[in-house]
Amino acid sequence: MTASTLIDRYHARDPRALARALTLVENDAAGSADVLRAARAAPHRPPVVGVTGSPGSGKSTLVSALIAHLRAAGDTVAVLAVDPSSPFSGGAILGDRIRMLRHHADPGVYVRSIASRGALGGLSARTLQALSVLEGFAFDWIFIETVGVGQSEVDIAAVADHTVLVLTPGGGDGVQAFKAGIMEIADVMVVNKSDLPGADRVVRELRAAQGLVTSHGPDDWFAPVVKARADQQEGIEGVLNAIRAHRAHLGEAGLHARRHERARFELRAALQDRAGRLVAGAGADLIDRLARGDLSADQAAAELLQ
Amino acid sequence: MTASTLIDRYHARDPRALARALTLVENDAAGSADVLRAARAAPHRPPVVGVTGSPGSGKSTLVSALIAHLRAAGDTVAVLAVDPSSPFSGGAILGDRIRMLRHHADPGVYVRSIASRGALGGLSARTLQALSVLEGFAFDWIFIETVGVGQSEVDIAAVADHTVLVLTPGGGDGVQAFKAGIMEIADVMVVNKSDLPGADRVVRELRAAQGLVTSHGPDDWFAPVVKARADQQEGIEGVLNAIRAHRAHLGEAGLHARRHERARFELRAALQDRAGRLVAGAGADLIDRLARGDLSADQAAAELLQ
Repeated sequence: MTASTLIDRYHARDPRALARALTLVENDAAGSADVLRAARAAPHRPPVVGVTGSPGSGKSTLVSALIAHLRAAGDTVAVLAVDPSSPFSGGAILGDRIRMLRHHADPGVYVRSIASRGALGGLSARTLQALSVLEGFAFDWIFIETVGVGQSEVDIAAVADHTVLVLTPGGGDGVQAFKAGIMEIADVMVVNKSDLPGADRVVRELRAAQGLVTSHGPDDWFAPVVKARADQQEGIEGVLNAIRAHRAHLGEAGLHARRHERARFELRAALQDRAGRLVAGAGADLIDRLARGDLSADQAAAELLQ
Repeated sequence: MTASTLIDRYHARDPRALARALTLVENDAAGSADVLRAARAAPHRPPVVGVTGSPGSGKSTLVSALIAHLRAAGDTVAVLAVDPSSPFSGGAILGDRIRMLRHHADPGVYVRSIASRGALGGLSARTLQALSVLEGFAFDWIFIETVGVGQSEVDIAAVADHTVLVLTPGGGDGVQAFKAGIMEIADVMVVNKSDLPGADRVVRELRAAQGLVTSHGPDDWFAPVVKARADQQEGIEGVLNAIRAHRAHLGEAGLHARRHERARFELRAALQDRAGRLVAGAGADLIDRLARGDLSADQAAAELLQ
């Protein structure tokens, strides 16, 4: 298939062309630049929702519940699942993914796994490019989710239009989120497993903590705190309404600004990939001189860039 | 004070000179290159112990207990506390630090807070340079610890000689650590709060999970799993012995390799700082062309580097 045939089929919403386009872009194979240009030139701008939270908070269950709700309303959904494919354990950790398989026979749901930058690493430029390919395919909604902890969690918040932070009652999750600074990246906070004791206390704690944060970011938005029981499909409409409210709050200008932030992130990631390759290729002698203090990091960087 | 006087006093182990040297290096002020060179040329190579774990696991309490134990044996200790000084909440989050104050009147304990790279960001090149200044001052032990989650946790494991992962019973911490890939960065695993129900189960789970990991990294080391009650000063000798065993396992060659890894990390961080500045200074037009797909990330990066 030539790149132009592929792009025609992609525009015609052929799922096999989508899969092929994603593979091209992920591998930076011949034609990937054309595919990416076509995807980014497409007029579609579906909501890109990042879902983050500590392990065990039920992120995947919430995403699955959101999908079920949206599908019932006839919307199409794509999920970009960022897996910390570890160099040690030798492959993506797909445990949580399996729950999403209840949608696997549904052609209105597309799930794509993509590797993060090494174990616990952040999102690479390729991940942002795969996201663009999904956006251009005109899904009604796109979710980005990651397994576990690490930089990917934070990065997802940086690139999404809307960041949903999933918490649970107990374990002082609310206070911990505040301490860790993670509350500030949330546009919507979901207290999941709200049947567990302490749910209302966590909601109160989160709202109180919001009062302590001196600024609510450039968007001047107070993140709604929503209770849910994702495994029982309860509270899901509330989560979606909070996302919709945030989208309305952002408006066209706000969304445009977020997309520019995403482009800056991609550019930074591309430069960091270059830096990583440079350092990996740096000779032992240069590293030794740096470790011994004969050379400053800036001098070593300058030497490497020459 | 001239740089050479400062360095003389630093070599003479004057605590005020240490504080001054750290401030110079952190601010990249005049004379910092000389100070850093002197620190790195010093022959001292104390163990650098990174302490990581989820919020609430009791990292700070464990560090405090380790300090108490080491001080009783006459060893001196420095702590480099990496704080996610958030641009939103406007300052370092010092809650956990306060517990360390029980050592504040002890001249054999030096605690230095340093900001991580923005909210939830990783370690900067400056942090690695501050670490070198502490090493050169000939403390017997150095601990690095961070507040909360985020990239700093992962980075600490990348730069320490020995990484201690702190877990707690309950909440499926063991399984979650495995899923998140965080187990693989641990050289020593501590099940803290071991009086809580489920402690022995977590120990068993962790040992079983170790059997599933196909490789134990370049060092071929099975991380010991140690139970502790840091708040009761119980199990602390066991943690120290596990660290000592890891140090013996690494040997001179292994420690040299870890220090080279640390230098590579510093170099990468320096290059990434440059990348961040470049992207922050990139014009809206370039970002717009990237967002629209007129330019690939690689093309935009090349244009920016010119």
